[in-house]
Formats: sequence, C-alpha cells, structure tokens
Amino acid sequence: MSISSSQYINPLIVQRADPYIYKHTDGYYYFTASVPAYNLIEIRRAKTLAGLAHAAPQTIWRKHESGDMSQLIWAPELHYIDGKWFVYFAASKTTEFDRNGMFQHRMFCIECDVADPMASEENWVEHGQIKTPMDSFSLDATCFEAQGILYYVWAQKDPDIKGNSNLYIAEMENPWTLKTDPVMLSKPEYDWETHIFAVNEGPAVIHRNGRYFLTYSASATDENYCIGMLSASDNSDLLDPANWTKYDKPVFQSDLATHQYGPGHNSFTVAEDNQTDILVYHCRNYTDIKGDPLYDPNRHTKIQPFTWNADGTPNFGKPVPYNYQ
Amino acid sequence: MSISSSQYINPLIVQRADPYIYKHTDGYYYFTASVPAYNLIEIRRAKTLAGLAHAAPQTIWRKHESGDMSQLIWAPELHYIDGKWFVYFAASKTTEFDRNGMFQHRMFCIECDVADPMASEENWVEHGQIKTPMDSFSLDATCFEAQGILYYVWAQKDPDIKGNSNLYIAEMENPWTLKTDPVMLSKPEYDWETHIFAVNEGPAVIHRNGRYFLTYSASATDENYCIGMLSASDNSDLLDPANWTKYDKPVFQSDLATHQYGPGHNSFTVAEDNQTDILVYHCRNYTDIKGDPLYDPNRHTKIQPFTWNADGTPNFGKPVPYNYQ
Repeated sequence: MSISSSQYINPLIVQRADPYIYKHTDGYYYFTASVPAYNLIEIRRAKTLAGLAHAAPQTIWRKHESGDMSQLIWAPELHYIDGKWFVYFAASKTTEFDRNGMFQHRMFCIECDVADPMASEENWVEHGQIKTPMDSFSLDATCFEAQGILYYVWAQKDPDIKGNSNLYIAEMENPWTLKTDPVMLSKPEYDWETHIFAVNEGPAVIHRNGRYFLTYSASATDENYCIGMLSASDNSDLLDPANWTKYDKPVFQSDLATHQYGPGHNSFTVAEDNQTDILVYHCRNYTDIKGDPLYDPNRHTKIQPFTWNADGTPNFGKPVPYNYQ
Repeated sequence: MSISSSQYINPLIVQRADPYIYKHTDGYYYFTASVPAYNLIEIRRAKTLAGLAHAAPQTIWRKHESGDMSQLIWAPELHYIDGKWFVYFAASKTTEFDRNGMFQHRMFCIECDVADPMASEENWVEHGQIKTPMDSFSLDATCFEAQGILYYVWAQKDPDIKGNSNLYIAEMENPWTLKTDPVMLSKPEYDWETHIFAVNEGPAVIHRNGRYFLTYSASATDENYCIGMLSASDNSDLLDPANWTKYDKPVFQSDLATHQYGPGHNSFTVAEDNQTDILVYHCRNYTDIKGDPLYDPNRHTKIQPFTWNADGTPNFGKPVPYNYQ
C-alpha cells in the first residue's frame, strides 16, 4: 500500500453524513452526502480527496414545498451511467412516523444529461419514485454494473419481517426502473445487526479478486452502528441469494479507545494513485447525543485506505483517529 | 509579512457565514459562525487555522422551541472576558418580517465559567437580551477592551433613520449590560453602503498603530456586500463620534475577475507566527442565487493575511481566489 492513513486529514468533511465519493473520468472526485438540514442535494468536486474539504458545494436539487419529496432528503448517491448523471436519494412526504413508528421514505431518481453535473440545477430533471412491488419505507439505494447488467441494491421495510429494513437486489430496465422482482439478500439477524433497532441499510458494492463485496450498515445509528458484509463470486447469478455469503461478524465498528463511534453508511473510492482503495464513511466522536439524533449534525465524513487479506477479502481495520492539528 | 495568502487553502470552511475566530491563551484557535440552519451555536477549535476546516464542532447552545430566542440564530461571537467565556448572538422570535419589512432580531448573551467552553453545553447559562434604550432590530454585536474599559459595538435599526441598521457604541457595566447610552458611529450614507438595502452591520475592531480600526459590512448581502471602515485615535474618547473618522470608500469588496462576491462580516485574528494579521470573512462564488438568499447555504469562510500601509491604515487587498485542488 503506497498511501497511508496519515496522508489524509480526518475528519475529512465535518457534518456530512452518508458520504458518497465518485472519481470520474474527468479526473475529479465528486462528493455528495446528507446535509444537516436534509433540505437539498449538493455536489462538490476536487482534484484530490483532501480538496473536497474546501471545495464549494453546488446545490443541484431542492426539496419540494409539499408532497412525496418534501421532507428529510437523505443519502444521495451520484452515478454516471451510459454518459448521463443520475442521483438516487430517499425523500419523505412528512417528518412524522407511520403507525409502525417508521419514517416514510421512498426512493427517487433525478437525471442530468449535460457533461458538467454542477453547471446548473436547472439541468436536473426528475424521474419520480423508483417503484418496487412493495410500497413501504425505502432508502439508501445504490447501483452497480456487472457483465453489462445494471443492478439496483437498496434497503426496504417488509411488514412481515421484524425490524426497520432489509437489503434487496434487482436488475434494472433503465436507471430509474426495475426489470426484475426484488430479491432479499440480507435481513437483520445477528446481535450486532439488531442493537436498539434491527437495521440493514446503506449498501455499497466493490468488485475485487473475482468477487462482489456488498457492505452495509447495521443496528441503530448511535455507537452501535457498524458495517457488515456479503460477498458473491463474479461468475455467479447475483440475483440468486444462495450465491451470496453473509459474514457473521461486523467488518468495521466503533473504536471506543479513539472516540470513533458508529462508523457506517460507507462508500468506496480509490486514492490519487488510482490503486489504493479508500473506505468512505461517517462517524461521531461522542455518544452523549442531546435531543433527537437525527438533528444532531455531527456525523462527520472520514476516509481511510484499506487493504486486502490473503483470502481475497477486504481488511478495513479500525476507524482511524482524528489527526487534524 | 512572513506568511503569504497561498499558505492557507480557501475557502477555509464551506457553508459558514459571519465567521469569527479567536486565538486563546491556550494556543487554540476557536471558531464560531452562523450555521445554515440557524438553529444552534457551535464552537470548534484547532491548533492551526488550517485545522479549523477539519475540527469537529461542539454544539454549545440550541434555539428555544418558542419565544425570543427561537428563530434565526445569527452571527455568534466568542469572547473571553475576565476569565469567563461569553457568546453574543442575535436571535428572533419569528422568521416573519415586521411591518417595516425588517427581521425582528435582538441581541442575547450566554456565559460559560469553566475553562473549556467545549466541555458541555450544560456549562452555558443564559443572560437574556442585551437591552438598549431603543427596542428595535439589533444584531452583530462585538466587544473590545480599551484602557480597562469594556466597549460594546453593534448594529441596530433606528425608526427615524432610513435603512436597516446603523452602528453604535456604548460602555459596558458587565459583559451583558450597557453602562452608557448608545452613541451612533455610522449610518449607511454612501452609494456603496446603500445598494439594494441601506446597511451598516457586522462590526469588528482591531487596535494597531495608535488607532482603533472598526470595520463593518455595508449594502445587501449579495455581490454588493462590502467592508467599510472607521478609525479613532487610541487616546481619544471612543464614545465621542467626533473622534471617529469614516472612510468614504469600501476597504474590501467583490472581485468579479476571480468570482469572489460579497465579501464581508469580517473578524480579525493573527497567524500561527503571532505576528501576521489575518482577515476572516465570508464570501460567495456566484451571484445567481435561487430562492431566498438567507437559505442559500453557500457563504463560505475565507481567511487571508493583510498588511499595513505607511500611513498606519490596513491594506486588506482583494479577496483571494479559491486555491484548493
């Protein structure tokens, strides 16, 4: 590994949760995340990961005054698919819980067909909700391409399954329409997935060593929040749950010694050397949250290089301590 | 000047307006500013100015559910006076305008008497409103000590004077109580003080070369926003307006060539060498603001060294361009 953790200053970006970084063919790193007010989607870009801390954000979309996309804009991801830009995000019609005590988000997609996604918010058009057969709490969608097929992976509540959300996969007809029925890949079942809340959410996919690794976040979003993992061979049918192996322990979790609490909702990018893999995630540095954790703005974006074990699995290590001066 | 502008990455901190930096006797730089949601007061600290970009904020106070301190928390300043910490901030009871089309802020003060102001928000107690004889729109208070006297300087609306606010000074009985009647030092009168809105606000004081320099911000908070200046000899009566000279031109303003628009609401600090003076201000990098500028989050905190002219006045130069990579 040619790039060490100490090369990056952490936290990289304060008060950005659910961080997503994409390195584009133009050489820029693009960054988006949930903003503390949950009221808009912004993008920033820089030539280096460090530069993202200082890059001026551009608002590309704002929540509606009312309706399905009017509240709690969460966890945008920016994808470049067949020469166009897409953002997936979760939005709700209300800040109220439903009768099951759940938020009421659904997934939505917006598109920009000009080369520069930051040129103007007027270039972004709405595709509306990404419909799934089940109409229930949905969030944290991502997508990836494998053997020419576009897959959609997301978290969703099934009223018949205990807990907040499970992980699903489907093939896509186009970037905002499913082609196949959703297949469940994981539900919260282990202790570390069910602390306070039973949660599987925030999926992210990376392809290495002949396998697809699907990381996700589990349990409540306090110090119990942690990252779990599934994997599947890249020559298997990814829509067959039997081809996915679920790891029985978290692969990344709180480090109490260095006050890194609840690392999760990760994404993946690559360092400036185009070789070193980088884990992107958010984390808090305290557990004593006053009031509603949703409105505690201090989930900060962190980045750190990671390596690969001899058996081909990722070694994420521990959340690095803060190292700013 | 031993420290050049290029030493600092700009913008230093994105989405923080009305930035205030104080270098304490503990060697830390403390930073506070308006947050985009205007819902709380936070402090962060770092050993270097650059470190402030990455330092994790601590919430020290939250807006009330209702009443005089329930809306639009603006422009906090952190002062260390006689061994205790004080924060001055503006707050309103409503987001609505009054019958004159003005916001309805008043000034408030909170205090912390433990050494570490970031230890817990529970250490902060409220002193309530800082009362002035006139009950009207008030904001942007600062304070400074001169010859053992604590002075309070702020912006306030006088219904008998055209425009949004003028600048006042008074002596303080204690950090949250005025001792003398307010004296007006400046009102918006020049063209550059009255673009779109007639405004004098955001005062900051620096003592150099036998004089007190009082900078302030003028005109609307778009690209017209700029910094003006007053000065007074340090052996004169600072409560006598006749002892203050007002400069007829702005001392710092937009630079269209480098897309630095509306620099203002400045404060002063000193570089890591304890010698080089640093101008702290916010600025936008575009003029095409969608919707209400108040809720456009992209006023970013910038810092840059400045020098002194042969006549003893500050030379702030132009807003430096962005230089992140």
